Amino acid sequence: MSKLLIVGTLAFDKIETPFGKTDKILGGAATFIGLSASHFGIKSGIVSIIGDDFPEEYLALLNDKNIDTSGVEIVKGGKTFFWSGKYHNDMNSRDTLVTELNTLADFNPIVPDNFKDAEVVMLGNLHPAVQNSVLDQLSEKPKLAILDTMNFWMDSALDDLKNVIKRIDVITINDEEARQLSGEYSLVNAAKKIHEMGPAYVVIKKGEHGALLVNDDKMFYAPALPLAEVFDPTGAGDTFAGGFAGYIAKTEDKSFENMKNAVIYGSNLASFCVEKFGTERMQHLTKDEVMQRLRQFKQLTQFEIEFN
Amino acid sequence: MSKLLIVGTLAFDKIETPFGKTDKILGGAATFIGLSASHFGIKSGIVSIIGDDFPEEYLALLNDKNIDTSGVEIVKGGKTFFWSGKYHNDMNSRDTLVTELNTLADFNPIVPDNFKDAEVVMLGNLHPAVQNSVLDQLSEKPKLAILDTMNFWMDSALDDLKNVIKRIDVITINDEEARQLSGEYSLVNAAKKIHEMGPAYVVIKKGEHGALLVNDDKMFYAPALPLAEVFDPTGAGDTFAGGFAGYIAKTEDKSFENMKNAVIYGSNLASFCVEKFGTERMQHLTKDEVMQRLRQFKQLTQFEIEFN
Repeated sequence: MSKLLIVGTLAFDKIETPFGKTDKILGGAATFIGLSASHFGIKSGIVSIIGDDFPEEYLALLNDKNIDTSGVEIVKGGKTFFWSGKYHNDMNSRDTLVTELNTLADFNPIVPDNFKDAEVVMLGNLHPAVQNSVLDQLSEKPKLAILDTMNFWMDSALDDLKNVIKRIDVITINDEEARQLSGEYSLVNAAKKIHEMGPAYVVIKKGEHGALLVNDDKMFYAPALPLAEVFDPTGAGDTFAGGFAGYIAKTEDKSFENMKNAVIYGSNLASFCVEKFGTERMQHLTKDEVMQRLRQFKQLTQFEIEFN
Repeated sequence: MSKLLIVGTLAFDKIETPFGKTDKILGGAATFIGLSASHFGIKSGIVSIIGDDFPEEYLALLNDKNIDTSGVEIVKGGKTFFWSGKYHNDMNSRDTLVTELNTLADFNPIVPDNFKDAEVVMLGNLHPAVQNSVLDQLSEKPKLAILDTMNFWMDSALDDLKNVIKRIDVITINDEEARQLSGEYSLVNAAKKIHEMGPAYVVIKKGEHGALLVNDDKMFYAPALPLAEVFDPTGAGDTFAGGFAGYIAKTEDKSFENMKNAVIYGSNLASFCVEKFGTERMQHLTKDEVMQRLRQFKQLTQFEIEFN
């Protein structure tokens, strides 16, 4: 079993969907990644930054899931990163209403000593210079470094992004962002170009249309579970990444065959995330529910054809 | 092995894509369905209508694939249905430039005696009253009737469409059309509503995002093979339907497990169709190529997770 180091935001989210709206609730990439990865019984730790307005119960909630938060810097008198967004009726697009960086604006991540030897590192969506700084602090090259990013950094910090992309093994990126980063419309060609930028494995997240794992000429496709209702997509991508990273950390096997399973677990966990607002569904998700859904994924995708 | 009756257009297509344009070439739903279904070594026959401008070599091409064309009415001095369209850069949307119904405007389908006992019937996209008339002529209820349709008939002949939908076992329909027909955005809910309209099985075609098979609470998802280049999407949906129908006709097994395989074969064959203009790729497709691609589909979708 490997240690998983998670770098990403802890945040307040305020969300509006066609189904309702929330007050400020617990959010942030590291939160979703941590909750998702916690299903694999691994030791994980978060490096992040918050203000002292962040409720202790939120940290306790993470600690209860065996997530180490000693790498979370608490800025006295500071305010925690805040994001507010409104989803359109199709749930595939959203408007950002508010982004207050607050303490995140000066985030200088410090990896605690007990996580400098983490074998698996999940770099959540943050400024690529911050992601780079985390890799610099590790005592040795991790067995697997996974990076999530978004179009914002392609627009504003492309050189930094290219620098960190060179150093990682797996990139998770959504379809439109893969097209933007590569300049290729076809996702097969986009994955090939991104692969040439560094990462051995490219995971293209297609939201309700599933996820595609590419490694050289090998491809694997995991559908999203078709759901009668998607209640709130916030955090689904991070939950996917957390499931992926957590499964790899647990199994310590980075073969393509095992990464397939990691993609399935990522999709599995993400399918729960969207069923309620924010982290609500993930906080109380049980192992039995995850196993039951794994059976659904098998029914959804597995077939037996005789070759003749 | 069952007999397959195919009802649909034989047509001239003139196609423009970002990769080039064609003159008038062989097209039509029945053509693509027939060529695709021919891979299963079954006896199939087409009911359609053409003008005497339709080259004999096109009929010979179909006959060479063991497709009976005695049910194709040739109107002396008549002109064959003609469609022309232009695909946008994303290949997912297109503009229809020309639709000349010609002989199709007065199509009164006559099922030849030797196909009145067909066990499997594939009703290609046509006016639902024409589809209904074909079912009326059969000597007994077929073991499996499959219907394809489109939004045009929902707008212009909804009552006729609802009448024929009551009588069939499988409907193939694209995602936007499923939403229109059901009034439900979620494809799970859309499939449920359409299921209540008659068909035991609902197949929702999602183009580059694959196809979803739904039967009560059972679902199966087949991805489209991710391709570096989609050259011409014309006929992909019909090729999918032809592969589905042909496989069921060959295996004579309409269990859900076997329908999964039919969906995989449909996706398999459709993935070839889009590689060249019109029917070009399908005319010379070999069994070895189909089997090789089946292996690709397995690699793309199959995984082994231990439950623990």
